[in-house]
Amino acid sequence: MFNKILIANRGEIAVRIVRACAEIGIRSVAIYTEPDRFSLHVKSADEAHFMGEDPLAGYLDPRRIVDMARETGCDAIHPGYGFLSENAEFAHICEQAGIRFIGPSGDVISKMGDKTAARASMIKAGVPVTPGSEGNLASRDEALELAEKIGYPVMLKATSGGGGRGIRRCDSAEDLHYAWERVISEATKAFGSADVFMEKCVVDPLHIEVQILADSHGNVIHLYERDCSIQRRNQKLIEIAPSPQLTPEQRTYVGEQAIKAAHAVGYENAGTVEFLVRDNEVYFMEMNTRVQVEHTITEEITGVDIVREQIRIAAGETLAYRQEDIQYHGFAMQFRINAEDPKNDFLPSFGRITRYYAPGGPGVRTDTAIYTGYEIPPYFDSMCLKLVVWAMTWDEVCNRGIRALNDMRVQGVKTTAPYYQEILKHPQFRGCHFNTSFVPNHAELLNYSVKRHPEGVALAIAAAIAAHAGL
Amino acid sequence: MFNKILIANRGEIAVRIVRACAEIGIRSVAIYTEPDRFSLHVKSADEAHFMGEDPLAGYLDPRRIVDMARETGCDAIHPGYGFLSENAEFAHICEQAGIRFIGPSGDVISKMGDKTAARASMIKAGVPVTPGSEGNLASRDEALELAEKIGYPVMLKATSGGGGRGIRRCDSAEDLHYAWERVISEATKAFGSADVFMEKCVVDPLHIEVQILADSHGNVIHLYERDCSIQRRNQKLIEIAPSPQLTPEQRTYVGEQAIKAAHAVGYENAGTVEFLVRDNEVYFMEMNTRVQVEHTITEEITGVDIVREQIRIAAGETLAYRQEDIQYHGFAMQFRINAEDPKNDFLPSFGRITRYYAPGGPGVRTDTAIYTGYEIPPYFDSMCLKLVVWAMTWDEVCNRGIRALNDMRVQGVKTTAPYYQEILKHPQFRGCHFNTSFVPNHAELLNYSVKRHPEGVALAIAAAIAAHAGL
Repeated sequence: MFNKILIANRGEIAVRIVRACAEIGIRSVAIYTEPDRFSLHVKSADEAHFMGEDPLAGYLDPRRIVDMARETGCDAIHPGYGFLSENAEFAHICEQAGIRFIGPSGDVISKMGDKTAARASMIKAGVPVTPGSEGNLASRDEALELAEKIGYPVMLKATSGGGGRGIRRCDSAEDLHYAWERVISEATKAFGSADVFMEKCVVDPLHIEVQILADSHGNVIHLYERDCSIQRRNQKLIEIAPSPQLTPEQRTYVGEQAIKAAHAVGYENAGTVEFLVRDNEVYFMEMNTRVQVEHTITEEITGVDIVREQIRIAAGETLAYRQEDIQYHGFAMQFRINAEDPKNDFLPSFGRITRYYAPGGPGVRTDTAIYTGYEIPPYFDSMCLKLVVWAMTWDEVCNRGIRALNDMRVQGVKTTAPYYQEILKHPQFRGCHFNTSFVPNHAELLNYSVKRHPEGVALAIAAAIAAHAGL
Repeated sequence: MFNKILIANRGEIAVRIVRACAEIGIRSVAIYTEPDRFSLHVKSADEAHFMGEDPLAGYLDPRRIVDMARETGCDAIHPGYGFLSENAEFAHICEQAGIRFIGPSGDVISKMGDKTAARASMIKAGVPVTPGSEGNLASRDEALELAEKIGYPVMLKATSGGGGRGIRRCDSAEDLHYAWERVISEATKAFGSADVFMEKCVVDPLHIEVQILADSHGNVIHLYERDCSIQRRNQKLIEIAPSPQLTPEQRTYVGEQAIKAAHAVGYENAGTVEFLVRDNEVYFMEMNTRVQVEHTITEEITGVDIVREQIRIAAGETLAYRQEDIQYHGFAMQFRINAEDPKNDFLPSFGRITRYYAPGGPGVRTDTAIYTGYEIPPYFDSMCLKLVVWAMTWDEVCNRGIRALNDMRVQGVKTTAPYYQEILKHPQFRGCHFNTSFVPNHAELLNYSVKRHPEGVALAIAAAIAAHAGL
């Protein structure tokens, strides 16, 4: 097992990894840039090292991070999600430096990061993909011709894209004509590559993803699926495990396809295979070669500590579970609490958290790096807290979600929490009839009235009086 | 189902009940006295009503509480634990007023509260009890004679006792001679009754208790056992579910005996049957006719929401589970975080919480009514927080406990948290060889060094700077 792990990330996922290290008995090393001087990940790791004034550069420079790992005597690096987690070059540099990258090999990252190569691998392995181009598109004319053949709507996608960027839906030849240049320009700017490909657009699908674990001895298991259909502009808002919308046969089928996909590319470590599901059709979408934000809900229903398994796998250990050991219980739901104002087009709402009160009680888990007095810096993601609830049944998990969102207090910034309560109360959501169109089709849910929390005021006054009295 | 429930309690258990009500969709009514003006249970309930200046009287007056329930339109009262929860008269007054008492009938409370009557019921039902007096003892001479017969050591116990009070171990006739008057005087003062009885003292036993649920239709199930052997002066400190020390046969046996005990007295609602276990002997100790502080760990391993089931049962509903539906997974452990100084003979440490930071991440649950700025009043229990951890294996749950205790910050008062970390690291505890003598036999565990949390200081400085800058 490793002695010391450098965590090449920040915020809640860095705290999550520190916790896994602490429970295994591995020392943890945090890195941070100027705006993160008072961040919780810095305080909770065994060591923390400053990476400079620039908010982002210190988290994005593979060589400097590997040098820091060497200087501090680390034998492994956990990349978390985002930042360098799906950067094949970073994985290669780690390998060369003799430091274990906690994730798949650089080659596998490359292969799955290249969407057309990934599609080709899946077709070869017999995993169903959407009809579309066989590789990258050479020209606008080729795109228009193919679209006629497979039928509109189609999706034009950046081959190196991800996280919902470099992607456009085209409902007609005219749409496609204009989208062509915009996607290429976006892809070039965001991913440094002008390659694009086309897929048939699956209208109003479920977004279903399967969590897999694969060790270095050829064992691959899945931990069942997550339903991430509640999205806004391709950004997940609420995730659910297992999906309340799949039949048992569909559940078995997507699990099998995910394992097939992982075997096909010689996958190692934790990963997620994403599918679009519409009626009885299942299509491979992409594979995420890292731990995901929403791994928490799979942990809640299976009891498997995914981050710990990542570390164990990277250390060469055999999977602690066989497929038949994995059972799931009840339902788990994650709310991404973003510092955004839903009523103002989800505008980021950065600033100082004047009061944070964590919800608790049965079936409630929080993963966060915020605390009372913490200043959310404007340079990073707006997600500031993950609230996870678990309960035995679908109705109970929804009610517990409403209760926990209500218990929680994040004051000083606006958050998406009140908006999620509206979603939880909607009959279509409660009745398990929702797909990726739910959020765009229900703009009326943004018309909630903002509750004042009178107790917040009372508590603030009490605290002020106590402070004044010198207590 | 009920429309509105009055919660005749305070602190974390009142918050717990508010949460259960919110999840079912029942309105909750809190009551409070002067020192609880800023308590969280007051803030989280739908309504809160003031019961006067006296810190305790408002929580202990059956008639005033029932009147308040009537005035506020409540159709049920949840008593929590402590206070009036095992007061048969209170249950009777509720019944007479047509308000449902969420617990067993007053008659059952009386029968189980009278320890000699309870013993007699158990003997009749064939539940094993320790050798001892058949009823109350008439005189010191009778006590001395009986002790000779069953053999020292013996326990002299107040018939109406509970919570570790009114109980004394006697190792010799001389001990018993002096204990006689002290127990009677204690019992008279604390419980208003001079009745005492005797039991053989089971030396160094495990304290094992079985959670049961019984509905008004004659269905009784158990939710497996808890191991509460880590005690100090009969006060539980750390509780574990299931017991890591029972054999599967013992587990089955205590479950069966608990169900037999519940049937024997026509029990209804949630209850706990406590046993002493030594080698292969199991003895009935007592039955607690209320929800217990440590119900949380049973919820974690079974997924059953015990407080919700209490409410459902009281409303006349049938149990939501059959015995075969109840499975347990992994291990859960609860730490009672008391505002006490372990290094100073566990002296209560009341005062203002200058910073509270809740631990989080996988397998961590908190139940508390404290928050940053909250002033712990000196009139009540010193328990200020319940930290519960869950993990798949014994070793993992111990490591997670250490991690979560370390993550948590309660500043401004001393707590038992650092002491618990020492217990978790002890080889005898880790090796699952501990009984009720563990705490008294390991006084050396109190010699821990008090860690300064440098990050606490840093965060405080950061907050002060931010406040100064008017942010």
